[in-house]
Amino acid sequence: MIEIYFLGTGGGAPSKRKLPAYLIRRNGFSALFDCGEGTQITMIDHGISIMSIKLIAITHLHADHVMGVPSIIQTMAMYSRTDKLYIMGPRKIQEFLKASFEGTYFCPSFPIEFIDQYEDNEITIRPFKTKHVIPSQGYIFQEKEKVNIDKERIQRDGIKDWRIIKDLKSGKEVKIGNRILRPEDYLIKKEGYKISYTGDTSGYDNVIKSVKDSDLLLHDSTFLDDINAEEYGHSTVSIAARIALDANVKRLGLIHISGRYENLCIFEEISRKIFEKSFVPKDLSYYLFR
Amino acid sequence: MIEIYFLGTGGGAPSKRKLPAYLIRRNGFSALFDCGEGTQITMIDHGISIMSIKLIAITHLHADHVMGVPSIIQTMAMYSRTDKLYIMGPRKIQEFLKASFEGTYFCPSFPIEFIDQYEDNEITIRPFKTKHVIPSQGYIFQEKEKVNIDKERIQRDGIKDWRIIKDLKSGKEVKIGNRILRPEDYLIKKEGYKISYTGDTSGYDNVIKSVKDSDLLLHDSTFLDDINAEEYGHSTVSIAARIALDANVKRLGLIHISGRYENLCIFEEISRKIFEKSFVPKDLSYYLFR
Repeated sequence: MIEIYFLGTGGGAPSKRKLPAYLIRRNGFSALFDCGEGTQITMIDHGISIMSIKLIAITHLHADHVMGVPSIIQTMAMYSRTDKLYIMGPRKIQEFLKASFEGTYFCPSFPIEFIDQYEDNEITIRPFKTKHVIPSQGYIFQEKEKVNIDKERIQRDGIKDWRIIKDLKSGKEVKIGNRILRPEDYLIKKEGYKISYTGDTSGYDNVIKSVKDSDLLLHDSTFLDDINAEEYGHSTVSIAARIALDANVKRLGLIHISGRYENLCIFEEISRKIFEKSFVPKDLSYYLFR
Repeated sequence: MIEIYFLGTGGGAPSKRKLPAYLIRRNGFSALFDCGEGTQITMIDHGISIMSIKLIAITHLHADHVMGVPSIIQTMAMYSRTDKLYIMGPRKIQEFLKASFEGTYFCPSFPIEFIDQYEDNEITIRPFKTKHVIPSQGYIFQEKEKVNIDKERIQRDGIKDWRIIKDLKSGKEVKIGNRILRPEDYLIKKEGYKISYTGDTSGYDNVIKSVKDSDLLLHDSTFLDDINAEEYGHSTVSIAARIALDANVKRLGLIHISGRYENLCIFEEISRKIFEKSFVPKDLSYYLFR
């Protein structure tokens, strides 16, 4: 199961919607995408563990996306964290954190490793280039292909020995007397889920290419269509919707909507005319993939 | 009238109580003392103007006291502030803000002046030395002596000409025929209010001397008495209460209580045995001097 917590879905200035922060949790793994001021406070207020965060991925170094990072790390240290923390982001993130730590007399008590991409046995997290007014990148959270045993077939063929099932699952042929059981007959492969997050970006071919076929795309939708969003390195709702359509994603979450807009229904209405499966996530809501 | 808003009264780690931030407002002047992460969010959420802040005074550069400053300044700029902002704090504050701004590609659109103390016609804000594990200072917010006309006496003596009253108020003698009116007979002087805020400090003679006779003392009271607070550069509740007693203050607000304590009544109970007029301010409460 994958849980996506919309901790803060707002735009650059604090408004009724909190500053950008999206938490993805999967089988005990937990990654935070962007971390605006107040993210740790929201998490602690709502009983969401900050200690289990394994990776923080920052899209770009504007304050609304990054100013929560120094403090959340310091709180982890205050609570005696010893586990390594991975950090992804534009190159300058390392220098920014170093200056913040030095400025506030802080020295991390646990290892911090800056990485370009993350991979373990079950997932990968890769950046992709976006187009903002400063260096920026989006992220693809990708589950690896899942291989499950075809339980129906196993039952139908009367296979009960767990050692045989284990061998088939690990891709080995199994011989029972004259009979040869081939793994490909007993395994079901399933594509993993793909979740994409753009951070701040204006419409851009590379975004379409990178987020292609995502199960969920969270796309910058700062403005309605009467503003030249590109000038500010952002997207309008219609641009976000067209990218979702062109990239053949399954669902589109419209995020980073400017605090100037009170009524968000209009964003959904406009978007759905172009790409039906659009929604505006609310702060503190979550999305599940089972 | 002076209003003191307790925006965040907690200790170093985020807890049910927010990170340190105290706003003092008086006749359109507004000063923020410390600014932990989330301060601007609390203010905006509760309709308290961040734009009217004229001065931010930081006690020391630990993250819980200062990490809200870069963001609140950036939001002021986003809302097109043009007024000068004064900043007080340990020397390093200037370097810290410079690094934060550079790290997040920000250049203030309004003047920022770093000052050692503030004075206008009606108030002064002065720092005093405290004793923490890093360079630190507390602040005295002091109203100047107020000179009001003795309305009863004016009425009794049948003075109705507003020009005479104005001259008396400005300290001039007034001659009416043979009669000489001396300003000292028609003026009432009143000491201004004195409000002191320690930030983080362990008990220290200079604190007692500096906060002497305050109308309100907000004093570090991080721990109960079973902890050697001095080792961490903090005070216990009993130390705070004894300082209030020795300094002959009128009221003591116990602040910066560690998140480990759920029941704050015990702080008031212990403190009141030493210094009766003690209280634990709640987040989002306020205190008025009329």
